[in-house]
Amino acid sequence: MYKTNPVSFADVEINGGFWAKKQKMNRDVTLEAVRLRFEETGRFEAFKFNWTEEGNLSKPHIFWDSDIAKWIESAALILRKNPDKQLEAKVDEIVDLIEKNQGEDGYFNIFFTVCEPEGRWKNRDAHELYCAGHLTEAAVAYYEATGKDKFLQLMKKYLDYIAQVFMVEKSAGFTTPGHEEIELALVKLYRCTGEQRFLDLAKFFIDERGKESQSLTGWCNSKYNQSHLPVREQRTAEGHSVRACYLYSGMADLAKETDDEELLTACKALFDNIVQRRMYITGGIGSSHEGEAFTVDYDLQNNTAYAETCAAISLAMFANRMKDIDMNAKYADIVEKVYYNGFLSGLSLDGKAFFYENPLEILHAEHDRHKSIHRSGERLPITRRQEVFGCSCCPPNVTRFIAAFGDYMYSTGDNGVYVHQFAESCAAFDYCGANVTINQVTEYPHDGKVKFSVCGLLNKHFCVRIPGWCADVRFNKQYTVENGYAVFAVDNDTFELEMDMDISPRIYASNPLVFANNGRYALQAGPIVYCLEEDDNGSNLRDIAVLRNTTFTVHYDEFFGANVIDAQGLRTQCDSSALYVPADAVQTKPVDVRFIPYYAFANRSDCDMLVWFKLS
Amino acid sequence: MYKTNPVSFADVEINGGFWAKKQKMNRDVTLEAVRLRFEETGRFEAFKFNWTEEGNLSKPHIFWDSDIAKWIESAALILRKNPDKQLEAKVDEIVDLIEKNQGEDGYFNIFFTVCEPEGRWKNRDAHELYCAGHLTEAAVAYYEATGKDKFLQLMKKYLDYIAQVFMVEKSAGFTTPGHEEIELALVKLYRCTGEQRFLDLAKFFIDERGKESQSLTGWCNSKYNQSHLPVREQRTAEGHSVRACYLYSGMADLAKETDDEELLTACKALFDNIVQRRMYITGGIGSSHEGEAFTVDYDLQNNTAYAETCAAISLAMFANRMKDIDMNAKYADIVEKVYYNGFLSGLSLDGKAFFYENPLEILHAEHDRHKSIHRSGERLPITRRQEVFGCSCCPPNVTRFIAAFGDYMYSTGDNGVYVHQFAESCAAFDYCGANVTINQVTEYPHDGKVKFSVCGLLNKHFCVRIPGWCADVRFNKQYTVENGYAVFAVDNDTFELEMDMDISPRIYASNPLVFANNGRYALQAGPIVYCLEEDDNGSNLRDIAVLRNTTFTVHYDEFFGANVIDAQGLRTQCDSSALYVPADAVQTKPVDVRFIPYYAFANRSDCDMLVWFKLS
Repeated sequence: MYKTNPVSFADVEINGGFWAKKQKMNRDVTLEAVRLRFEETGRFEAFKFNWTEEGNLSKPHIFWDSDIAKWIESAALILRKNPDKQLEAKVDEIVDLIEKNQGEDGYFNIFFTVCEPEGRWKNRDAHELYCAGHLTEAAVAYYEATGKDKFLQLMKKYLDYIAQVFMVEKSAGFTTPGHEEIELALVKLYRCTGEQRFLDLAKFFIDERGKESQSLTGWCNSKYNQSHLPVREQRTAEGHSVRACYLYSGMADLAKETDDEELLTACKALFDNIVQRRMYITGGIGSSHEGEAFTVDYDLQNNTAYAETCAAISLAMFANRMKDIDMNAKYADIVEKVYYNGFLSGLSLDGKAFFYENPLEILHAEHDRHKSIHRSGERLPITRRQEVFGCSCCPPNVTRFIAAFGDYMYSTGDNGVYVHQFAESCAAFDYCGANVTINQVTEYPHDGKVKFSVCGLLNKHFCVRIPGWCADVRFNKQYTVENGYAVFAVDNDTFELEMDMDISPRIYASNPLVFANNGRYALQAGPIVYCLEEDDNGSNLRDIAVLRNTTFTVHYDEFFGANVIDAQGLRTQCDSSALYVPADAVQTKPVDVRFIPYYAFANRSDCDMLVWFKLS
Repeated sequence: MYKTNPVSFADVEINGGFWAKKQKMNRDVTLEAVRLRFEETGRFEAFKFNWTEEGNLSKPHIFWDSDIAKWIESAALILRKNPDKQLEAKVDEIVDLIEKNQGEDGYFNIFFTVCEPEGRWKNRDAHELYCAGHLTEAAVAYYEATGKDKFLQLMKKYLDYIAQVFMVEKSAGFTTPGHEEIELALVKLYRCTGEQRFLDLAKFFIDERGKESQSLTGWCNSKYNQSHLPVREQRTAEGHSVRACYLYSGMADLAKETDDEELLTACKALFDNIVQRRMYITGGIGSSHEGEAFTVDYDLQNNTAYAETCAAISLAMFANRMKDIDMNAKYADIVEKVYYNGFLSGLSLDGKAFFYENPLEILHAEHDRHKSIHRSGERLPITRRQEVFGCSCCPPNVTRFIAAFGDYMYSTGDNGVYVHQFAESCAAFDYCGANVTINQVTEYPHDGKVKFSVCGLLNKHFCVRIPGWCADVRFNKQYTVENGYAVFAVDNDTFELEMDMDISPRIYASNPLVFANNGRYALQAGPIVYCLEEDDNGSNLRDIAVLRNTTFTVHYDEFFGANVIDAQGLRTQCDSSALYVPADAVQTKPVDVRFIPYYAFANRSDCDMLVWFKLS
């Protein structure tokens, strides 16, 4: 196992370009938008533990703790780089409420204290351990951002109680969480505190999963929460996709901390199963609304795609951890795919509204059909982003994931420093006893050129990911290629490198076994997947065929904050009113075709959208 | 309104070829197979009215009367041309039971006499009037076949009671049937008996529909049973497709008998709406399982297609009646399309098993997907024909429709005699005071040549349908074209005509608005739509592209009883295990492609099937 360590986002300044804009919007707009929605829906108020059956407060939901926890974690990540007394005070207020309302035994859960105290640790699907995990992640982030350890201590007390209940007394009604999350949070806490018992608890939950029959709700099976097999025997990604990738992330973390090669083997197989058979080209996963789940190999239908925003994030989290134990560019490729596509589509361009589901096609005719049949068939995703959801896991996951972009950019190992992501930025961190600085000057992803200035990296390698999508990359220095990284020998204290990636539009096909996409193609330029929208191309998008020999014209568009791409195509038309005509009665006429970034769909009118188009 | 009259099947002998074989199988195998299933399930026993809550007999279902009625009608149609004492005795036995168990007031309904007598005329959706309609059709057919009028008299008594309840007393809990059928049956009875009151009752039910709010079950809306508008205002085919076309058939019948131009206008619009926007290329209608219903224009999805066998039959019934009041080849075109495709697919090649739903694609990967998600999404049709269904409307509809093929072949009007369908046959009927005989010698549909010998048609026109699918037809005599018919002047008592239709394979496209078929094509030869099966072409049928310039090789296949067609194509393949690859990494290899008649799919292994394929 070749282990490397990620460079913290705290040591990376994204000081311009695409992600600087997104992070600014995240700080200025999105975090506050989420906070307001959570205020309005009573989620903050719930931390006062003053809900009663008779009162007029909204009844806390079992996962409200986790919503606020992710919001706190987002705030902490932002605070670490952008101190804000008011924001910090807001967090402190919640921490005080947690302290006040925590049980003497350490237990902290809103729903199972104020609504259903008799239900504690009885229902595996009731998200208690999931909430504990998110609170733990938030506590670590807040401690690392501010140095204040009150929240951390409260959570340690809670986790010690959980260890007592689950590992020692075994007195809970179930053995492992119904929704994984606490595993990776415990490793995070272990890394923060160095206290072995948290790693042990993580290992306990991971080791026990799938070893015994588990209580399940009526409509799901044991694959739903990955309890169908002991985790080391799992080779295909099954069940609820967020649960799955949170588990796999915890497994990868544990493999690293315990040098567990069996876990590594399982993680590698699970990752490959996802990206080779069960992932949309956008990085979206979990194709079915039923169970928000993986289904079968190559089942990647576009207009019914679930592809939850949280699931894309969870895949990036898993991929990112995989590179820490199996350095290969394929992992950072997926992180990038998620950031620019299936994740970013979950957020509106104005930063205020969210998609839970991220379909790859919107076909309003299908929605009309559903309305016409009264009882619906296959569920269709909504076509407009919303400001608030009843189940609001995605919005605060979006805010923390944008704030954490810097976490995914670099790592260090015995061989050298690795560059995984490209963005205008300055990084400064300690490595091998020296202070290393790396500057990137780039307009990526709108332009494929990146200038690196590196200091302090004497006699170690400088390894730059060559993106999997990149047909042609040029460097101004000699390099070798290792696991998808261009490896440069660094022989001087100062190292200047110029990278030039070809981000010309490129047409992709699916594996022929993807039965939803046969005869259809997708356009990608650099890491960005493109789509057609009715707003630009008129209705009936499925009938547009892009010319195989089209010229692509690329230009930057301020509204989308990215390049748009124009091409030439043919549109099928038929003068006959007949439903079926001899093939030669169907004519085509030349049309201009405009592609916009997939992530930016549904930011104008409520119109049709299509990723997979025909070629002619 | 130009009215014509159909020549009865009784006057037409199908004495060879495709339909003679099907009719023989219908007599020898299918009618008996249906009888046995109905025996086994207690449907015949139910006519003894001896079911009790305490007993061990199967509880009669509300539509069992209609199942047996259609079986009797089928038997009657067969008896008329093939006397069979045993079969006649079986029918007489049931008629005796009907006589014995009919109420003194005339009421006859198994369920609402023995199971729920307090429910009589209370539930619009409980099929009472529907059952009465089918019993009436059966009684007319049996009277016409045997001259025995007992059954007919029993039904007249029942219908007089229905008229009293619905038209005079208005004492029922609803005004018009929840499932149409009785309307067309009443017109049939009127035509048989000449008794005006039955036409009046048909007119009453048709006129009242959609005029007042109607009771509906929870999950359906007023379109479900065409009660959303007065029928004369209806312009789009809505709701349950069998209900719809039975209604439209009754409307067309009534339009003819009462010279109702408003009804004709509505019927024309409804027919065009179906065939121009809501019909599969197979003649299947009702694309959604939910409500077994029409949905919206151009919604013709293939693998979830409902396209009930009864619905195809009902469309042919409607089309056939339309030609009686608006002579145009487009109506007989649809009758032919249904007979050779979306209807015939409902019956196995051995005559023993049935499809209720007739999808245009079977994709087992979709079924695997459904199993994986535990709760299903959009319903998928079964992939194998069954010998019996709980709701068994289709099997006895199949038997009567095969037996009635001769009814659809000819009609007569002031202008002359019309030939609608082609089949090896001899017809002899009275027309304009003379006895006309028409012989067809043909191997249609395997060959496009038909030789007609006509006698007794002096000074009237002989009008032969030029099929809409026919790119090239040649006759050995001069003709003019009128409403899609080749019109020949007959100037001699004996008239010999040779017709030669080009039945070469022909590739069809959908209207570009059919969003399920974009970029896909279908193959038809003569009236027969073709499909690909995995048994011949391997898996992943969607990835086969037939060459645009392929040579088609046609040869007769004994197993399918029709021509099969071989072609050349390309199959997409990709050596990479990657899910997404640059388009040029996908290669194609030449493959032989075999098409079989669509109606014959699923008669070998349980494999994938596809109608709409790619071209390359």
